[in-house]
Amino acid sequence: MTQRTYAVTGVASGIGAELARILKEQGHRVIGFDIHEAQANLDRFIALDLNDAASITAAAAQVDEPLDGLCNNAGLPPRAGLEETILQVNFLGTRAFTQALLPRLRAGGSVVNMASRAGAHWRENVAQVKRLAAVGGCEGLAAFIAAEQIDATRCYNLTKEAIILWTMAEAEAMIQRDLRMNTLSPGGTATGIFGDFQRAFGAAVDRNIKRAGRAGKPEEIAQIAAFVLSPAANWLKGADIAIDGGMGAFNLTDAMDLQGLRLA
Amino acid sequence: MTQRTYAVTGVASGIGAELARILKEQGHRVIGFDIHEAQANLDRFIALDLNDAASITAAAAQVDEPLDGLCNNAGLPPRAGLEETILQVNFLGTRAFTQALLPRLRAGGSVVNMASRAGAHWRENVAQVKRLAAVGGCEGLAAFIAAEQIDATRCYNLTKEAIILWTMAEAEAMIQRDLRMNTLSPGGTATGIFGDFQRAFGAAVDRNIKRAGRAGKPEEIAQIAAFVLSPAANWLKGADIAIDGGMGAFNLTDAMDLQGLRLA
Repeated sequence: MTQRTYAVTGVASGIGAELARILKEQGHRVIGFDIHEAQANLDRFIALDLNDAASITAAAAQVDEPLDGLCNNAGLPPRAGLEETILQVNFLGTRAFTQALLPRLRAGGSVVNMASRAGAHWRENVAQVKRLAAVGGCEGLAAFIAAEQIDATRCYNLTKEAIILWTMAEAEAMIQRDLRMNTLSPGGTATGIFGDFQRAFGAAVDRNIKRAGRAGKPEEIAQIAAFVLSPAANWLKGADIAIDGGMGAFNLTDAMDLQGLRLA
Repeated sequence: MTQRTYAVTGVASGIGAELARILKEQGHRVIGFDIHEAQANLDRFIALDLNDAASITAAAAQVDEPLDGLCNNAGLPPRAGLEETILQVNFLGTRAFTQALLPRLRAGGSVVNMASRAGAHWRENVAQVKRLAAVGGCEGLAAFIAAEQIDATRCYNLTKEAIILWTMAEAEAMIQRDLRMNTLSPGGTATGIFGDFQRAFGAAVDRNIKRAGRAGKPEEIAQIAAFVLSPAANWLKGADIAIDGGMGAFNLTDAMDLQGLRLA
């Protein structure tokens, strides 16, 4: 097999840590980024704080080898008090880090952005996403939050809608760079930040998990991320893939009253 | 590795033939179904006419071993004069064949249904899909087509919307059977029926392919089908995956005017 080199953010825990493990198991090199130091399954660790423009520049500058792919997996959960940081880390900082790494991505390279089932309502929130995308700097963010009157949960959902729409918007430009970018939208996954989602989204989380039979496992998301990073997925471009054990389908089935379509 | 056994319909050409090749290359057993006899990359060929209820029953009855997965890939293109056959083969017959094979599918089994980018407007056509799903027998189909006043192109799109919505609707019931079902939605793929799509969808097809750089290759769709059939994709349930080289993303970007979100 061909050994490839992948960059993975948020590699210290959860889906990112599982992705590093799987990529190493497949024989690849992994450069891991996180705000918390990590070593497991990494060829190299580089400290990265997506809330800090200088850290983004410095981290990207330390990458001195060509990359076959980048998984933008790092993200903050919905947590009161973190509104600005969520907008910065999950979307604006992730976008800036991607831009900083573009020159390192080899032709044919794959960028996988971790979105969320929480971003599924992107169709209804295009205008707010555009306003967020146009915000510059930290002062701008505080004013944006005040003007939009949004709490941490809405900030979180907005960043996931933004990452889906941004990925779509870049599809054509990425082709011109001989790169491709897609989003994955996990739902109800058993990671260290699962409690935040239960608090933010209430009973719906437990109801979905009950219908799905259990929460998703980080490795189940990471397996699909590893595939989308690989050349076997090379015709996947600008797509969003729901990885939620059926949770999205249950909710759409209810909303559209599709039960009658089922086999006897 | 574990050898698995997969059933693939429409295996004589295009995406189905490529899927058989890839699954064999991965060391699996492949039982192929088609209206046209095929042998390449198959452990067994079973004749199947999805337009014929007796053929569906007979073909399914010939499967005497447990299956790890089924790819419902067979389908007719939009072609004037084939209206009833399109509705029958692409949706009603495919659904009946799936039902007939359910008892053969092993716990953990994966069903992959070939939808299309032409089915992307499922949100707007739920009511018509429900009416199609309720049609019984051939006489019913003629009356349905007359009542709905639909041509072959609309029939084709409707069957693809139907397969996406049906797959969604089954997500929860499939979990109870310890199975999972997803759809793939290729766009602009270079198969033997490509000319039909150019005639049916006009200049939009060539425009999309120009923006994507080229048409998709059957093997690029089949690689993803092989992955979704595999246990590595086991948390994918009730999902629809666009595999279109970015064509869906271009069109959504235009429709929502997202160009401003792009990196400089």
